Amino acid sequence: MSPTLTDWQTAINHTLDEQLATVVNPHLRAAMAYSVDAGGKRLRPLLLLSVVAMYDGVVAEALPAAAALEFVHTYSLIHDDLPAMDNDDLRRGQPTNHKQFGEALAILAGDALLTDAFAILSQHYPGKGAELVQILAEAAGSSGMVAGQVLDMDGEQTQYDLATLKQMHQAKTGALIQAGVAMGSLFVAIPEADQAALADFAAAFGLGFQIKDDINDVTKTTAELGKTADKDVAEHKNTFPELLGLAGAKQALATQFQLATAALNSLTVDAADLKSILAVLQA
Amino acid sequence: MSPTLTDWQTAINHTLDEQLATVVNPHLRAAMAYSVDAGGKRLRPLLLLSVVAMYDGVVAEALPAAAALEFVHTYSLIHDDLPAMDNDDLRRGQPTNHKQFGEALAILAGDALLTDAFAILSQHYPGKGAELVQILAEAAGSSGMVAGQVLDMDGEQTQYDLATLKQMHQAKTGALIQAGVAMGSLFVAIPEADQAALADFAAAFGLGFQIKDDINDVTKTTAELGKTADKDVAEHKNTFPELLGLAGAKQALATQFQLATAALNSLTVDAADLKSILAVLQA
Repeated sequence: MSPTLTDWQTAINHTLDEQLATVVNPHLRAAMAYSVDAGGKRLRPLLLLSVVAMYDGVVAEALPAAAALEFVHTYSLIHDDLPAMDNDDLRRGQPTNHKQFGEALAILAGDALLTDAFAILSQHYPGKGAELVQILAEAAGSSGMVAGQVLDMDGEQTQYDLATLKQMHQAKTGALIQAGVAMGSLFVAIPEADQAALADFAAAFGLGFQIKDDINDVTKTTAELGKTADKDVAEHKNTFPELLGLAGAKQALATQFQLATAALNSLTVDAADLKSILAVLQA
Repeated sequence: MSPTLTDWQTAINHTLDEQLATVVNPHLRAAMAYSVDAGGKRLRPLLLLSVVAMYDGVVAEALPAAAALEFVHTYSLIHDDLPAMDNDDLRRGQPTNHKQFGEALAILAGDALLTDAFAILSQHYPGKGAELVQILAEAAGSSGMVAGQVLDMDGEQTQYDLATLKQMHQAKTGALIQAGVAMGSLFVAIPEADQAALADFAAAFGLGFQIKDDINDVTKTTAELGKTADKDVAEHKNTFPELLGLAGAKQALATQFQLATAALNSLTVDAADLKSILAVLQA
């Protein structure tokens, strides 16, 4: 990562910690902080801030929005790991939230992170708060991330075709990545042609990111992943390697990388930060 | 209930169904609708609409806000009933959401209702959306309802004093009731003196409502309640009857009823609808 992105990670972490410090109940605060501070790359917030910076916006103004987005991402990981859901014991090399705090507090910590995300947006942005909330809530709710989770669950009994698999990945993972780009766009003025290209970039990156996750599940070890490997196969999940084979999945990933790169190259501004983030698809 | 309130219930139910109809995934939609349509009295939405009507606002304009509030209330019931939480099999005389749909879908249906509430507010109220979101998110999040749930859980190992018990009830139940009154207030112009009295009413009603719930748990049967009776005692919950005895709890309830009534009587307008809602404390 470039020094700029590393600086932004530090600023995002600081904003996240400021928000967590406002939680009065110590048990709840500890459970929320445990997962927020678990060493995520802050990919979604970085996408948001990169868009702001690329069009000469004020990055500091967008930090609370970036923190809200990370809260929603973190909630989704906590609930996704629950015994009734993916039943994961490990996340980022550490015990998952419910292994550390018990299921009840893990559910509540997730609920609080999700709700507080919208509190943060409304508190910091009286002007464009409603627009930011709309983008984030639509990406996360019954037409976005939650719908993707339900499709994922339904899929344990069904073999999806490629179109349905893409739709599932788009909702489950892509929607929140696209929300990062869309939220960032609200802080700046962007030429119309660039708006379309940024949306294309976000869609390709979002899908590519989940294909990469599918591939990692079958090619990397639990130690490398920081979470249990080979889970998708064990649970009969619909994934790109399962549908297309490993070589086919890698080809699909390469295609999304190319689409995302082409979209960035078509912009009227220099997209060095976004290209640097996009490189996670090749890691 | 007065004919006016019954009409509003019908309108609220219609708005809720319109929102649910937008959920594309049929499994998710069914799980969300099951609990939303389970026969709730729509108490919180009715409080919101009553405030709007009392100050000559347009009730129809406030219906989406009322629906968003009921979505948040419904999510809280679904998650609260989960095995890891209160582990309830019955709610309003029917199997709880996770008994009907399984735990995973129940968690996701709750998540979707919570998230969609904020989507509804931002979609329908581009102007005051941020203010509505702020009231609702602060009431429901880490300083409100979720904090109350954590206090409730922590209390299974601790005997609270009266101040802490009141604080717990205020957060767990009062916050969302107060949010209904506060959200309604955003749709109309309210004299300053009335604003304070309405806040007093909401605080007293909110606390009274949870004391009533505590009393019902020990005095009514499972059939009468539509949910499992005597659960608080079995789980060593902190409640008013447990701390003050049944007579003491009934006295505390009567006090809140009197405070709420006095606040309504001090208003510059006729509060017949709110008084009619307040009567649930005497049922």
